[in-house]
Amino acid sequence: MFETAELGRKVSKKDYDELEGELRTELLVAQRALKEAGTPVIVVVSGVEGAGKGDLVNQLTTWLDARGVDVEVFWDATDEETQRPWWWRFWRALPARGHIGILFGSWYTGPIVDTALGRIEEGRMEAAMHHVKAFERMLIQDGAVIVKFWLHLSKEAQHDRWRADSDLGRSWKVSPLTEEYGAQYDAFLKASEKAIRLTDTGLAPWYLVDASDDRYRDLTVGRTLLSAIRARLDGIDERSEPRQAPAMDAPGNGQTVLDRVPIDRTLKKAEYKEQLAHWQLQLHRLTWAAYHAQRSLVVVFEGWDAAGKGGAIRRAVSAIDPRLVRVIPIAAPTDEERAHHYLWRFWRHVPRDGRVTMYDRSWYGRVLVERVEGFATRAEWSRAYHEINAFEGQLMAHGTVVVKFWLHISPEEQLARFEERQQTPWKKHKITEEDWRNREKWADYAHAVHDMVQHTSTTEAPWTLVPANDKRLSRVTVARTLCERLAAALGEPLEADPVDPITAVPDQA
Amino acid sequence: MFETAELGRKVSKKDYDELEGELRTELLVAQRALKEAGTPVIVVVSGVEGAGKGDLVNQLTTWLDARGVDVEVFWDATDEETQRPWWWRFWRALPARGHIGILFGSWYTGPIVDTALGRIEEGRMEAAMHHVKAFERMLIQDGAVIVKFWLHLSKEAQHDRWRADSDLGRSWKVSPLTEEYGAQYDAFLKASEKAIRLTDTGLAPWYLVDASDDRYRDLTVGRTLLSAIRARLDGIDERSEPRQAPAMDAPGNGQTVLDRVPIDRTLKKAEYKEQLAHWQLQLHRLTWAAYHAQRSLVVVFEGWDAAGKGGAIRRAVSAIDPRLVRVIPIAAPTDEERAHHYLWRFWRHVPRDGRVTMYDRSWYGRVLVERVEGFATRAEWSRAYHEINAFEGQLMAHGTVVVKFWLHISPEEQLARFEERQQTPWKKHKITEEDWRNREKWADYAHAVHDMVQHTSTTEAPWTLVPANDKRLSRVTVARTLCERLAAALGEPLEADPVDPITAVPDQA
Repeated sequence: MFETAELGRKVSKKDYDELEGELRTELLVAQRALKEAGTPVIVVVSGVEGAGKGDLVNQLTTWLDARGVDVEVFWDATDEETQRPWWWRFWRALPARGHIGILFGSWYTGPIVDTALGRIEEGRMEAAMHHVKAFERMLIQDGAVIVKFWLHLSKEAQHDRWRADSDLGRSWKVSPLTEEYGAQYDAFLKASEKAIRLTDTGLAPWYLVDASDDRYRDLTVGRTLLSAIRARLDGIDERSEPRQAPAMDAPGNGQTVLDRVPIDRTLKKAEYKEQLAHWQLQLHRLTWAAYHAQRSLVVVFEGWDAAGKGGAIRRAVSAIDPRLVRVIPIAAPTDEERAHHYLWRFWRHVPRDGRVTMYDRSWYGRVLVERVEGFATRAEWSRAYHEINAFEGQLMAHGTVVVKFWLHISPEEQLARFEERQQTPWKKHKITEEDWRNREKWADYAHAVHDMVQHTSTTEAPWTLVPANDKRLSRVTVARTLCERLAAALGEPLEADPVDPITAVPDQA
Repeated sequence: MFETAELGRKVSKKDYDELEGELRTELLVAQRALKEAGTPVIVVVSGVEGAGKGDLVNQLTTWLDARGVDVEVFWDATDEETQRPWWWRFWRALPARGHIGILFGSWYTGPIVDTALGRIEEGRMEAAMHHVKAFERMLIQDGAVIVKFWLHLSKEAQHDRWRADSDLGRSWKVSPLTEEYGAQYDAFLKASEKAIRLTDTGLAPWYLVDASDDRYRDLTVGRTLLSAIRARLDGIDERSEPRQAPAMDAPGNGQTVLDRVPIDRTLKKAEYKEQLAHWQLQLHRLTWAAYHAQRSLVVVFEGWDAAGKGGAIRRAVSAIDPRLVRVIPIAAPTDEERAHHYLWRFWRHVPRDGRVTMYDRSWYGRVLVERVEGFATRAEWSRAYHEINAFEGQLMAHGTVVVKFWLHISPEEQLARFEERQQTPWKKHKITEEDWRNREKWADYAHAVHDMVQHTSTTEAPWTLVPANDKRLSRVTVARTLCERLAAALGEPLEADPVDPITAVPDQA
C-alpha cells in the first residue's frame, strides 16, 4: 500500500513558485464558492511521525482565507473530553456549513496508537474502524466533503529527516513522543495500514502522499483538496449520492509505482533451469503440505498483454499435483455470470480447503480494464477497492493464502512480442485488434495499476510486481514467491535457493 | 423493539380470502416487471422458532411464479460449504437478475445462534454484523432489492402454538432443535434484537411481523414484499441511490403500539403524594450515587402536545441537586445549530460523567415531527433510526444510562387540555395554531411513534410508554422509572414503593 508513496517525488523551487501562486488563487475562489453553497469540508491530516503534518497544516492555513478555516488539534484530551463519550470531542470540532475544518489528528489517531502500542486488540480496532466508516458516511450524507491525507515516509526517509533536523540545529522538532513512536515504526505502519484499508471507501478515500519532499507534499495536498472541493461544487445538487472523490492531484503525476520495478534484470539459461527446478520441487512439496494442513491458496495473475502470464502459470501449475490445482481463465463473462454481481463469478471458483485456484486475470479487471475502458462508472470502480479488500479479507479469515502478481514489461518489449506473435503462425491468434488498442492507453493503465497497488496491496495480501522483460526471471520469481508465501503461512521450512535470482545478475537499476 | 409485533393482530378468513386473490394477481404482475427490469430480489425470512417460517415460505412460492423463484435453505452446512470461506455458501445462493431468492435462514442465522448459545463473544457478533451490512449495501448498489422479515412470537404465543400443534396431533412440527432453541427464548431474542438493531439500515430495513396469526403473517409479508418491489420498479433509473424501502404494509395498519398503553389508569391524590415523595427521595439518593460512580444519565422526553412533559420534568428535576442536572428544551434550532448535522445540537449537551441531562424533546424529532411535516426527506428519516441507535450506542459504550419516555394521552384528553389552556390567561401562550394543526395529523404521528418504537426500543435503551391521561400517574411513573433504571445500572438497592401505582387502582383496561 505505502509503496506508492515511496517514489521519492520532488518539486523544484522554480516549479513550486510557479504552481503555488496559481493554486493559492484557485483555492480562495473555491473557498468562497464553498461558503455560498454551505458545504462543510473536513480535512483529515494523518501520517507517520516526522512527515511534517504541522508544517502542512500551517501551509494550508496560509493559503486559505483564515476566516473560514478551523484548525482542530487532537492531542492530549482534556477533562471535559475524557468525562464524555469518546465521539464528543470530534462532534464539537466539526466545521459548520461553508467552513473548512482541518483536523490535525482525528478519530483515527487513538485507535492506531493504541493498536501499535499493543493497548487494544485487533478486533476492537476493527470495530472502531467500522464505527468511523459509519460516522463519515453519515456526515457525507449530510452534505460534507471529507478529504483524508496520510503523509508517508519510509523508515529510512524518517531517519534522514530527523538527522537533517538535528544537523540544522532544529532538534527541538524531535519531541520525546516522536522518538518513542519512531522506534515503533513497523508497528505503527502495520496498524495504520489496517486502519486505512478498512476505511478507504469510495465515498471517503484516503490519499497517500509521499512526504519526503516538502514542496511535493504541500502542493499535492493543496491540489487534491482543490479537486475534491471542485468536484463537489460541480455536482452540488446530487447531494443524496455524493460524487466520488477525484484522484490525487500531484505535480508530475505520470510517475507510477511501476517505474520502480527493475524491469531489465535477466537470468542466464543455466541458472534459470537450476532455479526453476529447485522452486518447482519445493512448490510440489508445499502444496501437499497445504493440503494436509487444509489451507487453500488463491493466486491472481494480472499484467500487460503479452507479459507472459500463461507461461508463468504453466510453470507453476506443472509443479503441482493436478488433483490439487485449477486454473480459471477469465474472459468475457457468461450470460449467467452477467446476471450476478461482478464478484459472483470469482466466488464460484474459490478453492476448497487444501486446494489451489489460479486466476488468469481476476476481479481486478474492475479497477483495470473496466475502469480504463469506461465499462464501470467512476462510482463503481471507486468503491470496488473496498469491496475487493473485503472479499480477500473474507478469504484470509478462512485461512486462505492470497498471492497477487502483476507481470510488468516495458512498452518496447511488448511491441517486440506483438510483432513476433504476428509473424509466428501458431501464435498469430493470440494477438487481436484489441491488444493494439489497449497498447495506446498504456499511461492510463499504468495509472490504474498504481491506484490498484495503493488501495489493495496489504501486508497479508501484497502485490508482487514481477520484472518480466526476461521471461526466465519472471517465471522463477513467480514460483519462488509462491513458495515463500506458502512456507510462511504454513510455518514450513523453505530450502535456500541455489542461486539468488536477483543478486546473481548485475544490478542495472 | 419486538413490542410492536405483539399486538395480536388478526385477519378473518373472509377478509383473507378477499385480500389474497388481489395480492396474488399483483404479485405476479410485479414479478413479470421485475424480470424485464432485470432486478434481483432477496427475501430474508428469519424469526423465532415456531413462528411458521416454513409455512410462510411455502405460501410465498405458491403465490409467485415458481420459474423465477429460488428457495435456498441454510441449515446444516455441507462439506462443500464448510471447506470454503463462510460467505461462499451465500454467494452461490444469490438470485440472478430478474429472479426472487427466498432465503430460509441466511447470513444472520449463524451469528445469532452462536451468540444466543454463548459460542461467540458479543464483539465478534458485532463485527459479523458490520460485515453483513457492508455485504448487503454492496448488493443493493449493484441493483438488488433486499427485503428482510423477522417473524415474531412472544414467549407465551410460542408456547400456545406448540401446545396447539401437539393437540392437533402435529407434534412432528416440534423438532428436537425447536425445543432446544425454544428453551433459550430470552437468549435468542436478545441476540436477535442486537443483530436487527445493527443491520436495520435505511437501505435494507427489517420488517418485524407479528406471527401469532397465520393469515395476518402471510398477508403482511406478501403485501410488504409487493410494496418493496413496486417502489423499486417505480424508481428504476435511480439505481445509484436506491429508493428507501417503503413502510410495512399490514392489513389493518391503523393499530399501533400506543393502543396498548393503559391510558385510563389513575392515581388518587393521597397515594400520589406519598409515592412521588418516595421516588423523589430515591432519585436524589441515586443521582448522587451516580455522581460518585461517575456515571452520567441522559433522559429523553417525547409525547403529544399537552401531554404533561413539563410537569413531569419539573417533578423529577426538583429531586436532583441542581449542580448535577440540566434541562435542555429543544425548540427551533439556532443558526449555529442549523449549520451542522442534526445530531450536533444534541451532542453539545451530552453530560459529563456523574451528571444528568434531560432533553425536553430530542433527536427523535427527526423521525417524528420532521417526518410527519415533511421537513426531512424519506431517505433522511429512514436512515435516522440507524444513526440514532449508533448515537445512543456511543453514549452507552461510555457508561451513560439512557432513558426514553413517550407521554401518551388520548385525543379527547388533549382537546380538553387545549381548551382549558385557552381559557386560562396564564396558560394561553402555551397553545398555538401549530398545536391545532398537529392535532389533525394524530394518526400520522401515532404511526411514526410506532415505527420509532420498533426501530429504536432496545434492551439497553427501551422506550417507556407512559400512560399520561392522569398527570399524577404520569409523574410518578417517570420518577419511578428513572429510579429503577439508575438503580439497575449502578447495582444500587431500590427501596420498594409504598403502594404500587399500577395495582393500586382498579384496572380499567
